[in-house]
Amino acid sequence: MARFPFSAIVAQDEMKQALLVSAVDPAIGGVMVFGDRGTGKSTAARALAGLLPPISAVEDCRFGCTGEQQGTCPDPCHSGRVRKRPVPFVDLPLGATEDRVIGALDLERALRSGEKAFEPGLLAKAHRGFLYIDEINLLEDYLVDLLLDVAASGENVVEREGLSVRHRAQFVLIGSGNPEEGELRPQLLDRFGLSVEVRTPTDLDDRVEIMRRCAAQERDPDGFAEDWADEDEKILRKIARGRKKLESMVVPDEVLADCAELCMAVGADGLRGELTLMRGAKALAALNGAKAVKREHVVAIAPSALRHRLRRDVLDETGSTARIERAVDELFG
Amino acid sequence: MARFPFSAIVAQDEMKQALLVSAVDPAIGGVMVFGDRGTGKSTAARALAGLLPPISAVEDCRFGCTGEQQGTCPDPCHSGRVRKRPVPFVDLPLGATEDRVIGALDLERALRSGEKAFEPGLLAKAHRGFLYIDEINLLEDYLVDLLLDVAASGENVVEREGLSVRHRAQFVLIGSGNPEEGELRPQLLDRFGLSVEVRTPTDLDDRVEIMRRCAAQERDPDGFAEDWADEDEKILRKIARGRKKLESMVVPDEVLADCAELCMAVGADGLRGELTLMRGAKALAALNGAKAVKREHVVAIAPSALRHRLRRDVLDETGSTARIERAVDELFG
Amino acid sequence: MARFPFSAIVAQDEMKQALLVSAVDPAIGGVMVFGDRGTGKSTAARALAGLLPPISAVEDCRFGCTGEQQGTCPDPCHSGRVRKRPVPFVDLPLGATEDRVIGALDLERALRSGEKAFEPGLLAKAHRGFLYIDEINLLEDYLVDLLLDVAASGENVVEREGLSVRHRAQFVLIGSGNPEEGELRPQLLDRFGLSVEVRTPTDLDDRVEIMRRCAAQERDPDGFAEDWADEDEKILRKIARGRKKLESMVVPDEVLADCAELCMAVGADGLRGELTLMRGAKALAALNGAKAVKREHVVAIAPSALRHRLRRDVLDETGSTARIERAVDELFG
Amino acid sequence: MARFPFSAIVAQDEMKQALLVSAVDPAIGGVMVFGDRGTGKSTAARALAGLLPPISAVEDCRFGCTGEQQGTCPDPCHSGRVRKRPVPFVDLPLGATEDRVIGALDLERALRSGEKAFEPGLLAKAHRGFLYIDEINLLEDYLVDLLLDVAASGENVVEREGLSVRHRAQFVLIGSGNPEEGELRPQLLDRFGLSVEVRTPTDLDDRVEIMRRCAAQERDPDGFAEDWADEDEKILRKIARGRKKLESMVVPDEVLADCAELCMAVGADGLRGELTLMRGAKALAALNGAKAVKREHVVAIAPSALRHRLRRDVLDETGSTARIERAVDELFG
Amino acid sequence: MARFPFSAIVAQDEMKQALLVSAVDPAIGGVMVFGDRGTGKSTAARALAGLLPPISAVEDCRFGCTGEQQGTCPDPCHSGRVRKRPVPFVDLPLGATEDRVIGALDLERALRSGEKAFEPGLLAKAHRGFLYIDEINLLEDYLVDLLLDVAASGENVVEREGLSVRHRAQFVLIGSGNPEEGELRPQLLDRFGLSVEVRTPTDLDDRVEIMRRCAAQERDPDGFAEDWADEDEKILRKIARGRKKLESMVVPDEVLADCAELCMAVGADGLRGELTLMRGAKALAALNGAKAVKREHVVAIAPSALRHRLRRDVLDETGSTARIERAVDELFG
Amino acid sequence: MARFPFSAIVAQDEMKQALLVSAVDPAIGGVMVFGDRGTGKSTAARALAGLLPPISAVEDCRFGCTGEQQGTCPDPCHSGRVRKRPVPFVDLPLGATEDRVIGALDLERALRSGEKAFEPGLLAKAHRGFLYIDEINLLEDYLVDLLLDVAASGENVVEREGLSVRHRAQFVLIGSGNPEEGELRPQLLDRFGLSVEVRTPTDLDDRVEIMRRCAAQERDPDGFAEDWADEDEKILRKIARGRKKLESMVVPDEVLADCAELCMAVGADGLRGELTLMRGAKALAALNGAKAVKREHVVAIAPSALRHRLRRDVLDETGSTARIERAVDELFG
Repeated sequence: MARFPFSAIVAQDEMKQALLVSAVDPAIGGVMVFGDRGTGKSTAARALAGLLPPISAVEDCRFGCTGEQQGTCPDPCHSGRVRKRPVPFVDLPLGATEDRVIGALDLERALRSGEKAFEPGLLAKAHRGFLYIDEINLLEDYLVDLLLDVAASGENVVEREGLSVRHRAQFVLIGSGNPEEGELRPQLLDRFGLSVEVRTPTDLDDRVEIMRRCAAQERDPDGFAEDWADEDEKILRKIARGRKKLESMVVPDEVLADCAELCMAVGADGLRGELTLMRGAKALAALNGAKAVKREHVVAIAPSALRHRLRRDVLDETGSTARIERAVDELFG
Repeated sequence: MARFPFSAIVAQDEMKQALLVSAVDPAIGGVMVFGDRGTGKSTAARALAGLLPPISAVEDCRFGCTGEQQGTCPDPCHSGRVRKRPVPFVDLPLGATEDRVIGALDLERALRSGEKAFEPGLLAKAHRGFLYIDEINLLEDYLVDLLLDVAASGENVVEREGLSVRHRAQFVLIGSGNPEEGELRPQLLDRFGLSVEVRTPTDLDDRVEIMRRCAAQERDPDGFAEDWADEDEKILRKIARGRKKLESMVVPDEVLADCAELCMAVGADGLRGELTLMRGAKALAALNGAKAVKREHVVAIAPSALRHRLRRDVLDETGSTARIERAVDELFG
Repeated sequence: MARFPFSAIVAQDEMKQALLVSAVDPAIGGVMVFGDRGTGKSTAARALAGLLPPISAVEDCRFGCTGEQQGTCPDPCHSGRVRKRPVPFVDLPLGATEDRVIGALDLERALRSGEKAFEPGLLAKAHRGFLYIDEINLLEDYLVDLLLDVAASGENVVEREGLSVRHRAQFVLIGSGNPEEGELRPQLLDRFGLSVEVRTPTDLDDRVEIMRRCAAQERDPDGFAEDWADEDEKILRKIARGRKKLESMVVPDEVLADCAELCMAVGADGLRGELTLMRGAKALAALNGAKAVKREHVVAIAPSALRHRLRRDVLDETGSTARIERAVDELFG
Repeated sequence: MARFPFSAIVAQDEMKQALLVSAVDPAIGGVMVFGDRGTGKSTAARALAGLLPPISAVEDCRFGCTGEQQGTCPDPCHSGRVRKRPVPFVDLPLGATEDRVIGALDLERALRSGEKAFEPGLLAKAHRGFLYIDEINLLEDYLVDLLLDVAASGENVVEREGLSVRHRAQFVLIGSGNPEEGELRPQLLDRFGLSVEVRTPTDLDDRVEIMRRCAAQERDPDGFAEDWADEDEKILRKIARGRKKLESMVVPDEVLADCAELCMAVGADGLRGELTLMRGAKALAALNGAKAVKREHVVAIAPSALRHRLRRDVLDETGSTARIERAVDELFG
Repeated sequence: MARFPFSAIVAQDEMKQALLVSAVDPAIGGVMVFGDRGTGKSTAARALAGLLPPISAVEDCRFGCTGEQQGTCPDPCHSGRVRKRPVPFVDLPLGATEDRVIGALDLERALRSGEKAFEPGLLAKAHRGFLYIDEINLLEDYLVDLLLDVAASGENVVEREGLSVRHRAQFVLIGSGNPEEGELRPQLLDRFGLSVEVRTPTDLDDRVEIMRRCAAQERDPDGFAEDWADEDEKILRKIARGRKKLESMVVPDEVLADCAELCMAVGADGLRGELTLMRGAKALAALNGAKAVKREHVVAIAPSALRHRLRRDVLDETGSTARIERAVDELFG
Repeated sequence: MARFPFSAIVAQDEMKQALLVSAVDPAIGGVMVFGDRGTGKSTAARALAGLLPPISAVEDCRFGCTGEQQGTCPDPCHSGRVRKRPVPFVDLPLGATEDRVIGALDLERALRSGEKAFEPGLLAKAHRGFLYIDEINLLEDYLVDLLLDVAASGENVVEREGLSVRHRAQFVLIGSGNPEEGELRPQLLDRFGLSVEVRTPTDLDDRVEIMRRCAAQERDPDGFAEDWADEDEKILRKIARGRKKLESMVVPDEVLADCAELCMAVGADGLRGELTLMRGAKALAALNGAKAVKREHVVAIAPSALRHRLRRDVLDETGSTARIERAVDELFG
């Protein structure tokens, strides 16, 4: 099935912002997309794959290394030729077994030559790219835990079946889930950098437009892709510029104070809230081509960065998003 | 056991319409048949198999490819001769193991030649045809999920036992189930395109007629098949004409608006409701030989397309079908 | 342990009628025997085995085929000599593993010659005969389901361990169970053709007679068998005549209407009730040497055919059997 | 640990009677011993082993056959020399695996010669002897079921791992259990022929005598065994005489009527009650050297034969044993 | 970690008496130590190991046999030289697998020579010594059961994986457990010979003394061991003398009556109570160098022998120990 | 991901003290860190790794032995050259299998040479260093138990798969956990030497400073490490001095009495409380360069040593830390 162009997605601005910000700074820690069934969560995540600039990697390196990690890559890459390859976008298939995710003993080689070799899994494949998990709440907790652990440390440490291997695995984790189907544990949620909520559009014109675009793509997928290629290209350039700009972007102390105050006001546990707010504001500023990180970037990214980190307040029935917006108003309004 | 001719099925018009519409446009996303035990759910689904025109496929290709998918089929089919073969109709046997469904390592070859080869499963067999699951509610959720995932993406991605294979698997999923035996999760239901409800006929003449036909088939299966061959042939031609017509069928904007308004009125979550309504109306128009898609097609397919997507409304005890019909009356009546 | 002669069974007329009717028309769909522990359920089912006329089958064919199924039998039987063999009566041993029931990869051959061959299981052994399951409620649901599925379709489709085999498996399924030990799901029950209830006899003379016969058999099994051989022979001939007669037996429309009306009156879901009633009445008429199927045959078989298909009626505490008899009285009395 | 001589067991008369009656007629169907911990249940069952006369069996036959079962024994015994061997007494070890109980594929031979051979299990070892299960309520239900099934049919049918073997396995099953530790299902209980209840002795002299005998055995096991050898020898001769006498023993009709009436009076389900009563009375008469079976034998064995077959009567709180004794009084008193 | 000397243990007199009595007469049936965490349960049990006199065993015999068990030891020990070896003290490691406990097929030999040989487990290693299980309540019931079974019978019967081996395994089982962590079933408890309760000392001087000794051992383990070597040596000699004396020790009838009366008074089920009381009093008399067993020995060992065998008396909330002491007072006081 | 320098950690003084005290005296028994998500628990534990002085070990010894353990190391190390290697810091990866933790049969060697060799696991790797378990409450109880057992005994005893190996495994266990995610059993907690509680800082300046340092490290990890190298070096020297001093440090009797009195006052079960208090005070005195252990050291370490050992007092709702402080005040204030 052909991918839907990112720029052809109607509405859903918060989700689009979070995905682009993640593309600019993968260190933000992934995006969790909550929402009703059938609202295009998967479509958007998969569309992002088409937007990413290619990477340079050692030819044939199964771990996608740049050739500069002398001795840390399990493959012998020091002399390898470097080539462009598309940014990895791994779509975790339902029913993928643990050994295929983290890698395992290469049985074929073990049986043929009696040698214990490591066969990289999907975590190796996703290195320097994206790992998408549809319906993440259907995955077993320990596997989600493991994926978040690897995503956070950027390293996959395998200790099983007599193997002891470690390799880089830096990727943006994107999860989608339907809250009706059971929630993730707060501890797991907290480890996602950003979260967004998507809802069924309530605007009749938006809905008709969506049907029109779906019908157009079904009738002529190639033509449809072509129609939107220019728009997608613009976004690709914007991401590339943002990434370059990110390196030199500094967050002024008063913005840091904004982050801390906002987190204290909404009552987020731990420090991941303000650290993510800081990183998210920085990446958003870079994406938008701003010269410096400002309070407006903090405000714009705050719902995505904090929504999933609030303690439930029994006396205040206001939803998480509303509570963040109210705190923003009171502090900065 | 000989198949019962599709045209010899007494009554059950909604089920027949849904199956035929699916045969015209497989992209609609399958049919879920709900109903009491012993109402002929399985008989009808299996009867559909006899109605389908043959397909052209590369001889010996285990993935049923047309010969035009250069490089994407795991079998080396580029030079193969193309032959006609009956449309695949896979009847998922109870107790089929996961490896036979999605395919697995070919152990025989692995043991003989030490080579890791893929042995296609039932998903490959069903490509370009139908996959029927009787009593789908007895299947484990994750397997239903997996089947719906493959049906939706049209691709089977296998990541297990050191294998990493992907092949096309485009098929219409037909499920049957008895609501008394436990329901499917709303998320799974939502991914079926259409759903129909069948009940025990309450008309004495219908019931006597059914017994008469069953007795006739039991006495002389071949003669009975011959008696109904002409009727079945007519339906086959109708499907073939519908498929051809579908390609050029356009849905006017006012019909799109009808779809969106109806979905908003009945309160269906997400966008799958109106997308299915659009596709279903289009396929029904094509099947019936209409020149354009009209509101009447939307109305005719609405119960099948929306019934399983309604939120339970505690204050309105009316059944799903009744609620859809009332909304149709209020909007278009 | 020597088998107890069928004709030496004291009382238990309904059970005997159901077993004989099944022997006349295996397509009726098996018999489920309910009853207290120690009432001779197993004894009767096992006794039936001694009554069956031998069948003709290709010598050495592991699937018991008649030699006329060119190309559909997994064994190469086309040229085989046909011989008589006793009707198969498979007594499913407790603890039989799934692979032995449905068949499996022949490991011995696989290891010796590296060839994937199918080793037929008990379903193949039971082809053209009987499969008896004592205490069927102790079997796991999915296995009962699978057995009923095969019994209904007459075909065993095996898709596992890289095997893809199908062979005929037409047999009468006989189950026995004690309702105190947990019930079968209504869906499983509905798929049994007939059901009978047996109780501990309450007549002192019957009970003394039973003890006398048991003691006689224990003292001299061969002599006891001889004493009853003539009676058993008579029943065997009756079955053989009934089978021959069945082919030409027609059910008049007014009897079909009787069946439908009775089912509607007692409120049986689905159509299996009247179809079984029709088949049961036909087989009973054939067994009794009647010229045509009459209302009396419907009435005689009705409790066995419908008892396990009634919905529980909370307002009417009358047992299933009583409700059927009352409906018979009201309709035909 | 040396066995305790059967004749040195203090008190516990009902248990001793049941074990001896079982030794006379193994067809009675085993003995279930209920009782408090530490009351010598295991000691008595194990002591019985020392009392049994040797059997004649084909030398080296792993199935203990007599050499007269031409073609039914899996071992090639037709030409074998017959020798005496002690009566088998198998003490089911805790943690014995299912394959060791029912037998399994002989892996050693399979690996060496690629041949599928059957390795007999404990059921084969127990043939023509006793199988003792301490704390039978700790065994899994399905295994108890299987053991009772084999004990009842006298045949072990193995259908697993590609094996299809059947061999004789006629043995007396003796189980012991503590009701405090969880009960057996009524269905399992009903399949034991006899049951006895043992309690901690309440007589001080008995208790001191037991300690004295235990201390004597601990100090000098061989001397102790010698002291009681004569008494044990007497019992052995009594059993041997009883077995011979059993063959010709006839149960008069009035005694059969006694059995049936007593079962009806106490309300035992099914017919196993009176059949066991008949067999038990017969064996007891033979053991005691009586000329004919009389009512007194029925009365003496009734508690053991019926106690575990009574339905719980909510309105009558009297224990099972008391209810049987009261019925005996009312009927025959 | 160096062992703590037995004689350096502060207070805890009942535990020390029970362990020493067990060392004198292993047939008493093991010791169960209950108590709070951190009260030195494990320290004491492990300390006992240092106190035991060496045993004579056939060199290289893996079953530790004395060379006099002609034909009953699985190893070919008849001609072996006898040597001294330390008394076995096996500390069951947490996570030990069942095969290592009871022994298993020697896979290495099976793979190399195709021979089925038995590899002895920890039960063989513990023969003629001690088997210690820390936190026995964490062990699975069936394993505890199995260990108690072997400990009681003195024989390990292995029937698994096609093996059928039996060897002596006579050892004292010592278990420790924390009642807060879940109790053992009464049936399991009853099979332990003795039980003791240990508590956190409440005397300040004792507690300071314990810290002082721990600190001394941590600073200089070897010096500390030397300081207490003489005291330990004295205890070793006392055990050796007690063992010799035990053989000729007779229990007078009036002491047997004391045992039975005490058990009846406290209401212990079964006969294990008085048998253990008799054995314990005998061993204690031998340990203390008494000429004859007297009532005072019965009184001294009664709490350890009976505490874990009392039925819970709902009307008498007094603890087990208090109830035993009260009964002693009333009977003998 | 680069490690965060230990000295750059803002606030969290109790955690830092506990980790340093453990580094001085590994025999204290590990540190359990409780706290909210995102408070830097893992960061601190991992930072400790950078602070540890190198150790001397036999080159190539897989068990890290010093070369002085003649005959007790499974590797043949007696003649090996001794070299410096960094202190082991093992970070238990989520999903590590039991065999990789405790070691297992070396399958590669077993298959190649038919030899049963031991492949050391992570416990061997951690010998003489640290074993860190993030989210220890997610680990299965039996594995935590096993790790604590090894940590306490300093020895890993492996009895599985036919292997029987023991090797030294002396390490400090550091666990971190979030109380919201489920608690450890009291028995497990009690076996940790120290415990600390960390909370989200409530001081705005601290929070801004933390963000500033995180941002600085993210921008330039190497520069950041260099900035803090001197501070880390100072701590390393402090630990080294403390370790040397510890050997000769004596605890005066009045301090021992303080420990015992404090434990009795707060009601800690068992003796681990005062033993840990004694060891902790000693190590703290050594770390701080004190001449003798004084009451102030007992007071300073008391919350860490006792907090997790208090019984819940239903009548006193004060938290554990507060209760300890109050007892300190009352006793010594």
